[in-house]
Amino acid sequence: MLKFGIIGFGFMGQTHADTIEKLDYTELVAVCDTNAMQFKQAPEGVATFLKAEDLLATDINTVIISVPNHLHLEMVKKVAEAGKDIICEKPAAMNAAEFDEMMKITQAANVRFTIHHQRRWDKDFRIVKEVYDSQTLGNIFTIKNSLYGFNGNMHDWHIYPEFGGGMLYDWGVHLLDQMLVMMGDSQLKSVYATVRNVINKNVDDYFNIQLYFDNGITGQVELGTYMLSEKKDWFERHWFLGGDKGSANIDGFNPSGSITRTTELLQSVGGKTTMTPAGPTRSFGPPPAGRIVSEALPEVDVNHEMFFENYHRFVKGEEELAVKPNQIYQLMKLVDAIRESAETHQVVTLD
Amino acid sequence: MLKFGIIGFGFMGQTHADTIEKLDYTELVAVCDTNAMQFKQAPEGVATFLKAEDLLATDINTVIISVPNHLHLEMVKKVAEAGKDIICEKPAAMNAAEFDEMMKITQAANVRFTIHHQRRWDKDFRIVKEVYDSQTLGNIFTIKNSLYGFNGNMHDWHIYPEFGGGMLYDWGVHLLDQMLVMMGDSQLKSVYATVRNVINKNVDDYFNIQLYFDNGITGQVELGTYMLSEKKDWFERHWFLGGDKGSANIDGFNPSGSITRTTELLQSVGGKTTMTPAGPTRSFGPPPAGRIVSEALPEVDVNHEMFFENYHRFVKGEEELAVKPNQIYQLMKLVDAIRESAETHQVVTLD
Repeated sequence: MLKFGIIGFGFMGQTHADTIEKLDYTELVAVCDTNAMQFKQAPEGVATFLKAEDLLATDINTVIISVPNHLHLEMVKKVAEAGKDIICEKPAAMNAAEFDEMMKITQAANVRFTIHHQRRWDKDFRIVKEVYDSQTLGNIFTIKNSLYGFNGNMHDWHIYPEFGGGMLYDWGVHLLDQMLVMMGDSQLKSVYATVRNVINKNVDDYFNIQLYFDNGITGQVELGTYMLSEKKDWFERHWFLGGDKGSANIDGFNPSGSITRTTELLQSVGGKTTMTPAGPTRSFGPPPAGRIVSEALPEVDVNHEMFFENYHRFVKGEEELAVKPNQIYQLMKLVDAIRESAETHQVVTLD
Repeated sequence: MLKFGIIGFGFMGQTHADTIEKLDYTELVAVCDTNAMQFKQAPEGVATFLKAEDLLATDINTVIISVPNHLHLEMVKKVAEAGKDIICEKPAAMNAAEFDEMMKITQAANVRFTIHHQRRWDKDFRIVKEVYDSQTLGNIFTIKNSLYGFNGNMHDWHIYPEFGGGMLYDWGVHLLDQMLVMMGDSQLKSVYATVRNVINKNVDDYFNIQLYFDNGITGQVELGTYMLSEKKDWFERHWFLGGDKGSANIDGFNPSGSITRTTELLQSVGGKTTMTPAGPTRSFGPPPAGRIVSEALPEVDVNHEMFFENYHRFVKGEEELAVKPNQIYQLMKLVDAIRESAETHQVVTLD
């Protein structure tokens, strides 16, 4: 049985409490927050504390750290010293150096350590990963992973840079982690990034990240909190995979979309004028009827509780840990590189 | 009266013949091609020649050069020596050094010299430019200029790299020229580019170009000849402009689309849990009814014949030349920089 304490009982802490109440291999023992108002949201029978030290003295074996980002390192230290296993919210740390320290601390204390990257079990991502793994698109040249919305501003402490606010920390680490996980053994060589404060004065709310992998694929991760469209019920969670045997478009968290191919390609004969059937240019125009054919996306059955299922099996020695600290170290190095690239307008090489 | 000879009577040469036949201030005197089969497409009464020298001996004052790209420099030399004015097809040259030579040759010969960048009069581009110039979107952070199709292959000599084939030369120079013209006095600082041969073995058919301007705008130019979608009558000619006061989406050569804004932004209060109305995350989800409002795109009335009208007025001393050689020199320097960036995977700085 995983006996949990939660440090930081804001939005994510409360979400974790809901999950823990639902699962049959978990128990929520105590929560802690510096703001006693949050305890109104605590389930009945759960102890509440203003200080992490008091929570750590209870009968728990695992702590979820869901305080603002700048406090993760400090809390990981406290919890590791108390000998409890740790699930820390994302972004794991403010930078790679901090995360390196966390890895050393938890190793030295011999406690389990993982990061709550639940979006590895997002349905859209798993479909994309299955399309990618199946090689059905031939040689893939680009993968776009994008998210656009209408809200503009950040919420809560995410508006403060000193708390680790901004969208690169909030959503960026998810989108980037998905890219790195999908690429598997392929190495990220370099990154070029634009990061902007569009609506928010002090934190980033737009980024466009170009990832260059040693398998030749260009990964494009773009997010904007203020990129609008008049399409009905619009918000955009979009994946595009382009290969030399077809494309895949995957839209939404509970995705629609398809794999598309052409029944034939333009036959190109040098020196002879070949014309495409119609349209405003020779190379671009609407396809003739039947030229583009669609296939259904693969079915996947995933949910965010699978993060905890994996962790539980890992604790029981039945499964490998899914979200490995060394993966997250690479991710944090990438986040550092993105900030450097955005500031210098140069490519930053990863090693 | 502009009395034209056309050197190179393939697809574009024939297109120019059609245009010249239509306009009341132009006359087509002669055409020339190394392939006599093309003369079947010549209008009645127009002289046809296998050699440029013979065409240059006729009673013409202006020559359109529409031979494959690698022959532009050689033909510009011949025509300038014959003292005729020159309208050269795009891409103007294979690289900036070649174009520099063309500028020097035509200046020394004191002949008029311009490049057929007719897509400055594309309706979609002009609408975008008007949205940009009107500043109605507030501070713009990104402009995307993209073109995707289903054909895959290039046509005719465009499949041969030694002829100046590939999409960067064919369409890239149009899309890039539009970006540079729209930015006006703002300087392009640097470029990061991916250029790939996806379907075509020897020439590029995909590129993704990130332009960084000194006004802070990120220009994104992406083209793929094999980037598919199952949308009805689909091919994608898309512009997106993102600003802090709204977005603009412009689709198609005869465009549909709109300017979109929000009636209010998420009010962000630190330390308090503020929730967006609905959707799968706090920051992203479908907007509530009425939150996104649309405005019509501006109306513009343009067509490609305006390239010739401008040139004609320029010859009569009534108007400034629209497509200036020094603009095209900057464009060719950019194309060189794109190739360098794609090869080195580094940012290339423009001066």
